[in-house]
Amino acid sequence: MKVLGIDPGLGTVGWAVLEVHGRETYRVWGYGAIETPRARPLAERVLFLARALKEIVSREQPVVAAIEDLFIAKNSRTAASVGHGRGAILLTLAELGLPIHEYNPRQVKVALTGYGAADKSQMQTMVQRLLRLKEIPKPDDAADALAIALCHINSSSYETGVRG
Amino acid sequence: MKVLGIDPGLGTVGWAVLEVHGRETYRVWGYGAIETPRARPLAERVLFLARALKEIVSREQPVVAAIEDLFIAKNSRTAASVGHGRGAILLTLAELGLPIHEYNPRQVKVALTGYGAADKSQMQTMVQRLLRLKEIPKPDDAADALAIALCHINSSSYETGVRG
Repeated sequence: MKVLGIDPGLGTVGWAVLEVHGRETYRVWGYGAIETPRARPLAERVLFLARALKEIVSREQPVVAAIEDLFIAKNSRTAASVGHGRGAILLTLAELGLPIHEYNPRQVKVALTGYGAADKSQMQTMVQRLLRLKEIPKPDDAADALAIALCHINSSSYETGVRG
Repeated sequence: MKVLGIDPGLGTVGWAVLEVHGRETYRVWGYGAIETPRARPLAERVLFLARALKEIVSREQPVVAAIEDLFIAKNSRTAASVGHGRGAILLTLAELGLPIHEYNPRQVKVALTGYGAADKSQMQTMVQRLLRLKEIPKPDDAADALAIALCHINSSSYETGVRG
């Protein structure tokens, strides 16, 4: 059962597709980051993002999506910007009929490290270890997306099926 | 040339479809507000919003859209929420191939009243007067959408064509 993990944003969106076979044996189908054209109007950027996401879903055929929860930035400009990207991502996944699970950063940290205040480097090391990767996945947004997919696989929602 | 005006948001989205015939003779094709189901997950709300917007566009056949600019709320939670709605709206309009023009609240106020600090009641009175409506349009979000469409019709972008 392939899980699509998404680290949402407007400028850079991390994505990862994972599957678990038996106990803690994961298959990484792919991961990366979608970069939207910064100099272009917002409508073009969200359209670019939606098209890139549809391509990934069409190629990888995940059956469920996990996305980081509403991110409340200190800065309201950042919050609005992430909100634009996240709104476009949720709409695209919903139009594709993918069940969507949302996790906040603390839940992702606890799922991977058992510790809700884990830092970026601890998280990336855990992602690398759990997935038996040779290197820390790059960019950070892709590593975050892998962490979110892992969080979902290790959650009760995964155990009980794919319903959003 | 029908113009779709949008007052963006997540919970309530104002819309209006206007056309101008000659000097300050407007035809109001329709206006209203889309209310998304508040108790439902975000993905469902943006999907509801996108479908409602597509229905309006399919029925009214506007050739251009005007939307209020990125709204920077004081509160970052509000900014994120409006951002979600706005991202979904921009994506929907871009997927439909509608050219999109963005105006900030000050531009809309200047276009209608000549005064960038006009209050809500002054704006609504101008919308009613310009469109020769019997009453102030309700809800406020619909009146705002009418104001945004009027702002576009009276802008240089309208004069020079429909390109976004």
